[in-house]
Amino acid sequence: MELNSTSCPKSCKASQARAGAESFLITEYQYLGIFMAVFSVFIFLFLGSVGGFSTKWVSCKANPSELCAPPLANALFSTVAFILGALTSTLSGYLGMKIATYANARTTLEARKGVGEAFIVAFRAGSVMGFLLAANGLIVLFIAIVLFKLYYGNDWTGLYESIAGYGLGGSSVALFGRVGGGIYTKAADVGADLVGKVERNIPEDDPRNPAVIADNVGDNVGDIAGMGADLFGSFAESSCAALVVSSISSFGADRDFVAMSFPLLISSAGIVVCLITTIFATDLFVIKSVKEIEPSLKRQLVISTVLMTLAIAAVCYLALPSTFTINVVGHQPKVVKNWKLFFCVGSGLWAGLIIGYTTEYFTSNAYQPVRDVADSCRTGAATNVIFGLALGYKSVIIPVLAIAVAIFLSFSLAAMYGIAVAALGMLSTLATGLAIDAYGPISDNAGGIAEMAGMPHKVRERTDALDAAGNTTAAIGKGFAIGSAALVSLALFGAFVSRAGIAVVDVIQPKEFVGLIVGAMLPYWFSAMTMKSVGKAALAMVEEVRRQFNTIPGLMEGTVKPDYKRCVKISTDASLREMIPPGALVMLTPLIVGTLFGSSTLAGLLAGALVSGVQIAISASNTGGAWDNAKKYIEAGASDHARSLGPKGSDAHKAAVIGDTVGDPLKDTSGPSLNILIKLMAVESLVFAPFFAAHGGIFFKWLNI
Amino acid sequence: MELNSTSCPKSCKASQARAGAESFLITEYQYLGIFMAVFSVFIFLFLGSVGGFSTKWVSCKANPSELCAPPLANALFSTVAFILGALTSTLSGYLGMKIATYANARTTLEARKGVGEAFIVAFRAGSVMGFLLAANGLIVLFIAIVLFKLYYGNDWTGLYESIAGYGLGGSSVALFGRVGGGIYTKAADVGADLVGKVERNIPEDDPRNPAVIADNVGDNVGDIAGMGADLFGSFAESSCAALVVSSISSFGADRDFVAMSFPLLISSAGIVVCLITTIFATDLFVIKSVKEIEPSLKRQLVISTVLMTLAIAAVCYLALPSTFTINVVGHQPKVVKNWKLFFCVGSGLWAGLIIGYTTEYFTSNAYQPVRDVADSCRTGAATNVIFGLALGYKSVIIPVLAIAVAIFLSFSLAAMYGIAVAALGMLSTLATGLAIDAYGPISDNAGGIAEMAGMPHKVRERTDALDAAGNTTAAIGKGFAIGSAALVSLALFGAFVSRAGIAVVDVIQPKEFVGLIVGAMLPYWFSAMTMKSVGKAALAMVEEVRRQFNTIPGLMEGTVKPDYKRCVKISTDASLREMIPPGALVMLTPLIVGTLFGSSTLAGLLAGALVSGVQIAISASNTGGAWDNAKKYIEAGASDHARSLGPKGSDAHKAAVIGDTVGDPLKDTSGPSLNILIKLMAVESLVFAPFFAAHGGIFFKWLNI
Repeated sequence: MELNSTSCPKSCKASQARAGAESFLITEYQYLGIFMAVFSVFIFLFLGSVGGFSTKWVSCKANPSELCAPPLANALFSTVAFILGALTSTLSGYLGMKIATYANARTTLEARKGVGEAFIVAFRAGSVMGFLLAANGLIVLFIAIVLFKLYYGNDWTGLYESIAGYGLGGSSVALFGRVGGGIYTKAADVGADLVGKVERNIPEDDPRNPAVIADNVGDNVGDIAGMGADLFGSFAESSCAALVVSSISSFGADRDFVAMSFPLLISSAGIVVCLITTIFATDLFVIKSVKEIEPSLKRQLVISTVLMTLAIAAVCYLALPSTFTINVVGHQPKVVKNWKLFFCVGSGLWAGLIIGYTTEYFTSNAYQPVRDVADSCRTGAATNVIFGLALGYKSVIIPVLAIAVAIFLSFSLAAMYGIAVAALGMLSTLATGLAIDAYGPISDNAGGIAEMAGMPHKVRERTDALDAAGNTTAAIGKGFAIGSAALVSLALFGAFVSRAGIAVVDVIQPKEFVGLIVGAMLPYWFSAMTMKSVGKAALAMVEEVRRQFNTIPGLMEGTVKPDYKRCVKISTDASLREMIPPGALVMLTPLIVGTLFGSSTLAGLLAGALVSGVQIAISASNTGGAWDNAKKYIEAGASDHARSLGPKGSDAHKAAVIGDTVGDPLKDTSGPSLNILIKLMAVESLVFAPFFAAHGGIFFKWLNI
Repeated sequence: MELNSTSCPKSCKASQARAGAESFLITEYQYLGIFMAVFSVFIFLFLGSVGGFSTKWVSCKANPSELCAPPLANALFSTVAFILGALTSTLSGYLGMKIATYANARTTLEARKGVGEAFIVAFRAGSVMGFLLAANGLIVLFIAIVLFKLYYGNDWTGLYESIAGYGLGGSSVALFGRVGGGIYTKAADVGADLVGKVERNIPEDDPRNPAVIADNVGDNVGDIAGMGADLFGSFAESSCAALVVSSISSFGADRDFVAMSFPLLISSAGIVVCLITTIFATDLFVIKSVKEIEPSLKRQLVISTVLMTLAIAAVCYLALPSTFTINVVGHQPKVVKNWKLFFCVGSGLWAGLIIGYTTEYFTSNAYQPVRDVADSCRTGAATNVIFGLALGYKSVIIPVLAIAVAIFLSFSLAAMYGIAVAALGMLSTLATGLAIDAYGPISDNAGGIAEMAGMPHKVRERTDALDAAGNTTAAIGKGFAIGSAALVSLALFGAFVSRAGIAVVDVIQPKEFVGLIVGAMLPYWFSAMTMKSVGKAALAMVEEVRRQFNTIPGLMEGTVKPDYKRCVKISTDASLREMIPPGALVMLTPLIVGTLFGSSTLAGLLAGALVSGVQIAISASNTGGAWDNAKKYIEAGASDHARSLGPKGSDAHKAAVIGDTVGDPLKDTSGPSLNILIKLMAVESLVFAPFFAAHGGIFFKWLNI
C-alpha cells in the first residue's frame, strides 16, 4: 500500500499504480460515506414528512378498499434501498478496479508471448468486470425485492416505489465515479502531457515523468470505475422505472410476480447471452494479428445483439400474459399484447447497436470523418478544432434519430413501460459492452507498465495495437452509456410523472416552458463547471511536474526517481474538491425546483435537461474520440495521406496534439458526466415525487398562481 | 464599380471594398430572387389547397354567423406579404450597407482629427442604419395592413394571419444575410489570417495580403447586412405574432384598431426614444479620450431602456382599453388589464438590458472571465480552448434565467400575447442596439482602410481603440439578437399552436416528445454544417492566398499588387454555395415534419429547437467574443498581467491567436445563424399552419395512430 516511490525497483510500477488507485478510492469513499449519510437523512425526513411521520397503514390511492403502507415505512425502505444501491455499486466498482489493476500487469506479461495472448487476458478481465457488475446489481435488487415484500405484503405500489431508492443509490455513486474520476484522470493526463510531451519532449508513460503514475491510476478510476458505476446506475434505474410503472398497472393489481419481474428476467437473459458471446471472442475465433482486434470486438456486439433478440422473444413469450394493461395517469389505461413488448425491448437493443456503429464511424480513423479532421491539421490547430467540433455536432444526428425511433415505437406500444424496457433492452448486453469498454484502459495501462518497466520495444508495440482498437471501442462504450442514459431518463421521467400524479406536461404553459428552457441550460452550466475543474486541476499538476523537473537534479537523466506520490495526491485532492460544485448542482436542483416551483416546473426541467444534455454528451465524446484518433492516425503513418501529415513532431502533428488535449476533458469528463446529470436528476425527482406532490411549489403557492 | 485591383492607387481601397460588397450583394440577390419566386409558389399552393382553391367566402371558425375570406385569398395575401417582407428587408440591408461602406472611409478621415470626431461619424452612421431599418419595417407593415384591410373588411383574423407572411419574408432574407454573410466574412477572415498573420508574418489588413479586401467586404456583409436582416426579421416576426394572437382575441372581435395596433405603437415609441437617446451620445456628452468610448456606448443602452420604460407606460395607458381578453385555444380566455401589459413589455425590455450587461461581463477584457482565458494561454492553445469553451457555457446561465423570468411573467400575465409584446419590448430599442452594433464593423473597416492607405500610425491607433470597444458592443448586439430571437420564436410558437388549433403540447406523449428531442438536435446539425462550411471556404481561401504569394513575384515586397478580385470571388461563391444545405435544413424541416408527422410533432420540434438553440447560440457568440478580446488583451499589454503574457508573437499570444481563429466561425457564423434557425422554422410553421391542420400528418394517418 505504501507509495514509496523513490526506492521502488522497476518491476513494482504496477503495484504503485494499484496502490495509487486504491488510495484514491479510499479517500473517495470517505467523501461518499459522508454524502450518503447526509442524503439518507434527507430522504427519510422528506418522504416521512409526506404523511406527517404517521405509522398507520392508510387506504390505497388506486384501490381505497385495500390498505397501503404508511409513508413513514416508504421513507424508511426508500432509505434502505438507497443505501443498498450505493453499497452494491461501490462494491462492484471496487472489485472491478482490483481486477483491472491486476489484469494490467498480466496483460503486459502475456504481450511478451504475442498479441493474441495479451488480447485474451485483457478481454477476459473486462468480461469478468462486466459480469460481476451485471450479476451483482441483479442479485441484490432481487433479494431486496423479496425481503421488502415480507413487510409490504400486498402493497406492491409501496414496495416498488421504495425500491426506486436503489436506482438513486447506484446513480449517486456514479456521480462520484464519473465526475470525480473524470476530473482525476484528465487532470493527470493533461498535466502529464503538457509538461512531459510538449515541454520536455519525453515519450508518453516515461517513468521520468512525475505524473505518470497518476495518469495510469486515472485510467482505472475514470474509465473503469466511472464507466462501471455509470452503467450500473443505468441498469438499476431502468429496472426501478419499469417496476414503478408496472406496479401501478395490471401486473401489480393481479399480483403476477413473474410478469412483474419481467425487467429482471430480461437482464438475466442478457447475462447468459453475453456469456455465450464471450466464448466466440476467447475460444472460437482466436486473434492472430493486430488487424483482427477491432473486427473481433465489433463482432462481439453484433453476436450479442442477435442472440439477445432471440432471448427477448423467449422471455416475452414465457414470462408475460398474452394481454395486460398499463395505467397512464389521466388517460385511458393502455391494453398491451405480449409481442408488443418484444418490439419495445428490441428497439432499444438495436438502437444501441446503431449508436455503437455510428460512434465507431465518427471516431475510428479507418473512416473519412477522422481523416478529414487529421487533414485539417495541415493549416494548424485552429482548423483542427473547428473541424473536430463540427464532426462532434454532426455525429449527433443518427444516434438521436435512432433514440427517437426507439422512443416513438416503445412509447406508442406500451407507454412509459415501453420506454423503461427499451432502456433495459439497450442495457441487456451490458456485460459485453463493459468488457469491450474496460478492455481499452486495461491495454492502455499494460502499455504504460511495459514502458515504465523498460520492456522490449516489441511488447510496447503489441500493447499499443491493443490500445488503438480500445480507443474506438471506448467511444462505442460511451455511446451506449449516453444512449441508455437518454432512455433511462425518459423512463424515470415517466415514472416520476406517474408517481407525482401529473397527467399532462404542457409546454405551452408558463411553468412547464420555463422549466424546459432552464432545464436545457443546466447541461451547459454543469459542463462549464466540469471543464473548468479539469483545467484548474491540470494547471496545478503542471506546476508540480515542472517544479520536480526544475528542482530534482538527475531526474531528466533518469538517475533519480520523481516523487510520484505527490502527483497522485494533487489529482486526488483536486478531483474530490472540484466535484463538489457540479455534484451540488445535480443533487440540489431537483430538490429546490420541486420544493419552490412544484412538480410541473420540475417535469419541464427534466425534459429540457434530457433533450439538451443528450446532444452535448454525444457530441463531446465523439469530438474528443475523433481528435484522439486523428492524432494516432498521424502518428501511425499507415497510409500515404497519413505520412504526408506526419511524422511525430511535425507541425500537423503538433496541431493534432492540441486537439487531443482539448478533447480529453470533453470525452472523459464533461461529456460522460452529463449522463449522470440527466439520470440522477430524474431518479431523484422520482424518489422525492410524493414530497413534491404534498408540499412542493411553495413559491407559486405564495404568489397564488 | 470595376474591381481593377492591380492598377488601383492607394486611396481607392475603400471603393474596392464598396464594389466588392456590392458585387456580393448583387450575386446574393440573384439567388434570393430565385428562392423567393419558388417559395412564393409554395406558399400559394400549400395555403390555397386548404380550401381546395375555392373563391367563396366561408363562415368564420370563431363566429360562424360572420363571413371570412376564402383560403385562396389568404394564400394570395400571405404570398404578397411574404414578398413585401423580403423586399423591405433587402432594401434596408442594401441601404445599410451603402451607408456603412461610405461611413468607413469618412471615419478614417475624421480619425486624422481625433478620436471623438471619428466616434461621432461611426456612431451616427450606425444610428442612421438602425433608424432606417426600424422605420422602414414599421411603415411598410402599417401600409400593408391598411391596404389588406380594404379587401378583408371585417375578417380581421384572415387579415392578420396573412400579414404573418411579412415575418416569413423578412426572416428568409435574414437566412441569406446571416448564413451566407456569416460564411463569407469568416472564410475571408480566417483565410487572410492563417496565411498573412501566421505564415507570412505580415500585419492584419496589410495591403499585400490578397484576401484583405474580401475580409473588409465580409465585415460589411456579415456584421452589418446580416445583423440588420436578423433584427429586422425579429421585429417583423414578433409584430406578426402579436397581431395574429390579438386578432383572435377581444381586440379583433371588437374591431378596436388602436388597441390592435399596440405592437406597432410600441415600436414607434421605440424609434422616438432611440432618437432622443442618440442626442446624448453625439451632442450632450462629447467623447474626448479612448477610455470614454465603451462607457458611452453602454450608457446609450441604459438611457434608452429607462426612457423606453416610461414610453411603454404611456402607450399602455393611451392605446389599450383598461380590460380586454386574450383567447387561448382549448382553455378559458384570459382577462387582462392594461397595466399588466406594461409589465410584459417591460420585462422583455429589461431582460434585454440584463443580457447585454452579462454579455459584456463575459466578453470584455475589463473583467475577470476574459483575463482568466488570457491567462490560460500560458500553458498553450489547448488550455485556452478548454477555458474558452467553459466560459461560453457558463455565460449562458444568467441570460437564460433572465429570459425565463421574462417569459414566466409575460406568459402568466397575458398568455402568448404577453410573450409577443415582451419580444417587442426587447426590440423596442432596436435602433440604439443596431447603432451600437454597426459601429463596431464600421470602425474595424476604418482601421483597415487606414492600414491599406498607408496613413500615419496615429490614425490606426485611434481606429483600433474604436474597434476594441466595438468588439464588446458587437457581442452585446449578438446577445440582444439571440435574446429577442428566443422570445420571438416562443411568440411565433404560441401563434402557431393557436392557428393550428392545438390546445396542449404534452411532452409525455410520443409524438411531442420525439419532436422535442429531434428538435433539440437540429441546432447541432445546423451548426455542424455552418462550421464545416466556414472551414472548407477558409481552406479554399488559404490555397488561393498562398498561391498568390508563391507565384506573384514582388508581392511580398509590395511592388506588385495582389489579385484581390479573385479572393472576393472565392468568398462570394463559397458562401452562396455553402449556405444551400443549412438553408434547406431550415426551410424544409417544418414542411416535411408538418406534412408527414403533423402539427403535434412539429410543435414539439419547435420547442426543442428553441430551448436547445438558444444555449448554443449564446455560448458560441460569447466564447468567440472572449477569445477575440483575450487576444486583444495580450496585444494591448495594458497591465502587468497582460504584459507578462505578451508581447505579440510570444507563445501565449500564439495560443491566443488560435483561440481567436476557432472563435471566428462560432461567434460570427454558426452562433448567430441559430437565431435564424429557431425563428424561421417557427414563422414558417405559423404561415403553413392551416395546411398542416388540413392535410398534415400523412405518415401517422397511414400508420393509423
